[in-house]
Amino acid sequence: MPRIAYVNGRYTRHAEAGVHIEDRGYQFADGVYEVCLVLNGVFWDEEGHLARLDRSLNELAIEKPMTTRAMRLVMETLVRKNRLKDALVYMQITRGVAPRNHPFPDGAPNPSIVITAKRFDFSKSEELAKKGAKVITAPDIRWGRVDIKSISLLPNVLAKEAAKRAGAQEAWLVRDGFITEGGSSNAWIVTRQGEIVTHPLGNDILGGITRQTVLKCAEELQMKVVERPFTKEEALKAAEAFFTSATTLVMPVVSIDGEQVGDGAPGSVARRLRDAYIAKGQSAAVAAPEAANENRLL
Amino acid sequence: MPRIAYVNGRYTRHAEAGVHIEDRGYQFADGVYEVCLVLNGVFWDEEGHLARLDRSLNELAIEKPMTTRAMRLVMETLVRKNRLKDALVYMQITRGVAPRNHPFPDGAPNPSIVITAKRFDFSKSEELAKKGAKVITAPDIRWGRVDIKSISLLPNVLAKEAAKRAGAQEAWLVRDGFITEGGSSNAWIVTRQGEIVTHPLGNDILGGITRQTVLKCAEELQMKVVERPFTKEEALKAAEAFFTSATTLVMPVVSIDGEQVGDGAPGSVARRLRDAYIAKGQSAAVAAPEAANENRLL
Repeated sequence: MPRIAYVNGRYTRHAEAGVHIEDRGYQFADGVYEVCLVLNGVFWDEEGHLARLDRSLNELAIEKPMTTRAMRLVMETLVRKNRLKDALVYMQITRGVAPRNHPFPDGAPNPSIVITAKRFDFSKSEELAKKGAKVITAPDIRWGRVDIKSISLLPNVLAKEAAKRAGAQEAWLVRDGFITEGGSSNAWIVTRQGEIVTHPLGNDILGGITRQTVLKCAEELQMKVVERPFTKEEALKAAEAFFTSATTLVMPVVSIDGEQVGDGAPGSVARRLRDAYIAKGQSAAVAAPEAANENRLL
Repeated sequence: MPRIAYVNGRYTRHAEAGVHIEDRGYQFADGVYEVCLVLNGVFWDEEGHLARLDRSLNELAIEKPMTTRAMRLVMETLVRKNRLKDALVYMQITRGVAPRNHPFPDGAPNPSIVITAKRFDFSKSEELAKKGAKVITAPDIRWGRVDIKSISLLPNVLAKEAAKRAGAQEAWLVRDGFITEGGSSNAWIVTRQGEIVTHPLGNDILGGITRQTVLKCAEELQMKVVERPFTKEEALKAAEAFFTSATTLVMPVVSIDGEQVGDGAPGSVARRLRDAYIAKGQSAAVAAPEAANENRLL
């Protein structure tokens, strides 16, 4: 069965799925994206991801090429067409195709939309969560609007490559002495006093959808959370550290730049938050069939 | 006659020229580019542009998909196939196609290469040069390695769009109080003492090829040049201002944020440098037939 992707209104074989060479996503990184986790056929935080997509489009004045309702239908159809149960659904919208010139094209072109789905290996994620992830630190040299989930990801690529070369799974980015976030995740620590700390929202971090749900989980578990910047030194003295994203859920960190965090094993707070996050997703699954039916009516 | 582009080893109709949706240029801005001016069939600063392309690829550890010699042949062939005399040749190389994941793919994929050529209207450029260009200033929120000519251009797009909306042709970017460069050009002023000033090379400006040639022109004209940062206030008090790039050559600036520069008309130093730059290109044209023949032997 060939893998299927959705490109500008058509379901097409993934291997042949293309965009024009003058798509502004290709020449200017003039576009935005989202990644949504699907476990057991259920979309996690789908509403949050689609709302953030709207926000990113809005910040860049890119028109939305289809309604959220239609997009959900495509996302579900792709998961079904590719016969996936656990999946990552990737969606990308760019300003469209136009003769190369920096400013927005006159008479706004049709935005381009690409949606793909690929298998997600949950057991691998659980495996890493039991062992704990390693992170390195790297200078945060990204642009000033990383709150927009744009495809302008070259600095992230370089940071993640540096992490990979160091045998680590994530790079924590340091700006003005403080850890802002990871190359593709939000960064957290748990102090020895049991306080959960993560960088506040603003232009220098992406407002993680998983971050938001984990904050809710922490609240429900009556854990104390403070949103403030923290340093690498503080992280190394912390009881625990972890990172969050749609593809890693809640991932305990056991070392930073080769130095042990806490007792060098995944912490209990991170584990509880991961379990709570997974439970929240499963409870969403109970409500899912109805939502799915509703979409099928489209 | 259909417009022809070159994509990954093939000459193809521009309208149908595409790349895969998982090209890392499309998903991560993981690629570099160059734009080379052609006047009267002669490539300007071709060597400089191709050398900078090598540098950009090297900085990002992207393999070069073909030799410089072969690339020159493609560039010339495209100009010929599209029956152009005055043209802009655009070349873009990305890390290639791979399943989406931030770090460099294992077993490096073949880099993707796209080369296009389009008509350049020299008379329009001369027209603007006679009138003088308007610039606005905007915060320089780009990433920390703009010396790499990458396609991670979203901040440049936003700055150039802001300029366009203000009725200006360029946005001069301000970091820590100093003008670094324009959204797609290098920035220069001429002080009342006749000193030509432009930002020094480093990670916060792109080492312009036109900038380099204009520096040579200034030297030949025995003009005094100082490479140091300057502020907007200094630019407003200057005798002249101008910007340089492959597509604008030397372009006099007559206002910044609506405030007049010098006497509000294109300055004589900018005009002399523009003329010297054009003369330099024309003298290259004399040597061109031989070079062209050499390439034809490939």
